[in-house]
This record gives sequence, structure tokens and C-alpha cells, in this order.
Amino acid sequence: MKVHVTVLPKPSVLDPQGSATAEAIRHLGIAGVGRVRIGKMIELELPDATPEEEIHRISRDLLSNPVIEDYSIARA
Amino acid sequence: MKVHVTVLPKPSVLDPQGSATAEAIRHLGIAGVGRVRIGKMIELELPDATPEEEIHRISRDLLSNPVIEDYSIARA
Repeated sequence: MKVHVTVLPKPSVLDPQGSATAEAIRHLGIAGVGRVRIGKMIELELPDATPEEEIHRISRDLLSNPVIEDYSIARA
Repeated sequence: MKVHVTVLPKPSVLDPQGSATAEAIRHLGIAGVGRVRIGKMIELELPDATPEEEIHRISRDLLSNPVIEDYSIARA
């Protein structure tokens, strides 16, 4: 199965890359842009029987930094 | 509205970061890991009336490199 893990900076954490992107979108001439946050998307191919807990372990220990990032898991 | 733009390397493009992550998952003791691809997730806050074409323009011109990456758009 395919698993998508999304890692985004926590809302309270400054995201300078996101702010720069918001500014660049305004420069494209598109108005009304609010907050932009930039994170990671990791697509994993795992055996169908992989327990949910293992996927959380991968996401927590390997794919994200829990101090400044939140992750979410979606099975595709 | 919130728009999620996902940017992943094209299947034909080497993804050394993904290969290294697959190896690290195996080192965690989790077997059967297949391909791992690492990309970006961009969360945009845009006015509800933003036309689809503008979102494609942002994704194509600003958020992805069309030579080596594919993007997909999801309205949240």
C-alpha cells in the first residue's frame, strides 16, 4: 500500500520559506494571499499488513522533528 | 480557502533522499519497505474566488520545477 506522510511546521513556528513564497505569489499579481506554509510530503510503499504504530514510529522518529513540526498520515 | 499543493519528483527521476530514507526505515527494523519518494507540501490560504488557472500558475511557475517534478492540487 501507499502511505502519504505530510509534515508541516507547527502553526506557532515561524516559516520564513512560506513567507517568502507568499510574497512571491503577490509579485505574480495574485492578490489576497494569506498564510503560506511549506512542509514535506513523503510517499512510502509499505506492506499492506504494516501496523499503524510502525507508520507513526517512522513518521515521528525519522520523517519529522516533533519539536517544530506536526505530521499526518493518509493511506492511499 | 485552503489549498494543498503536493510536489513530488517524477517517477523517472532519481530520488536519492527517498532512497536514503528507505534505507533508514530498514535500519529501524521495519521490513518490506518499497520505494520512498520525498517531495513538498505547500499549504496556501487563498480567497475563495481564486480561479483554478491561477492556482495552476502558482504551482507551475513558483512551487515546482516541471522538468523533474509533478504537482497536484487539492482544495481543503
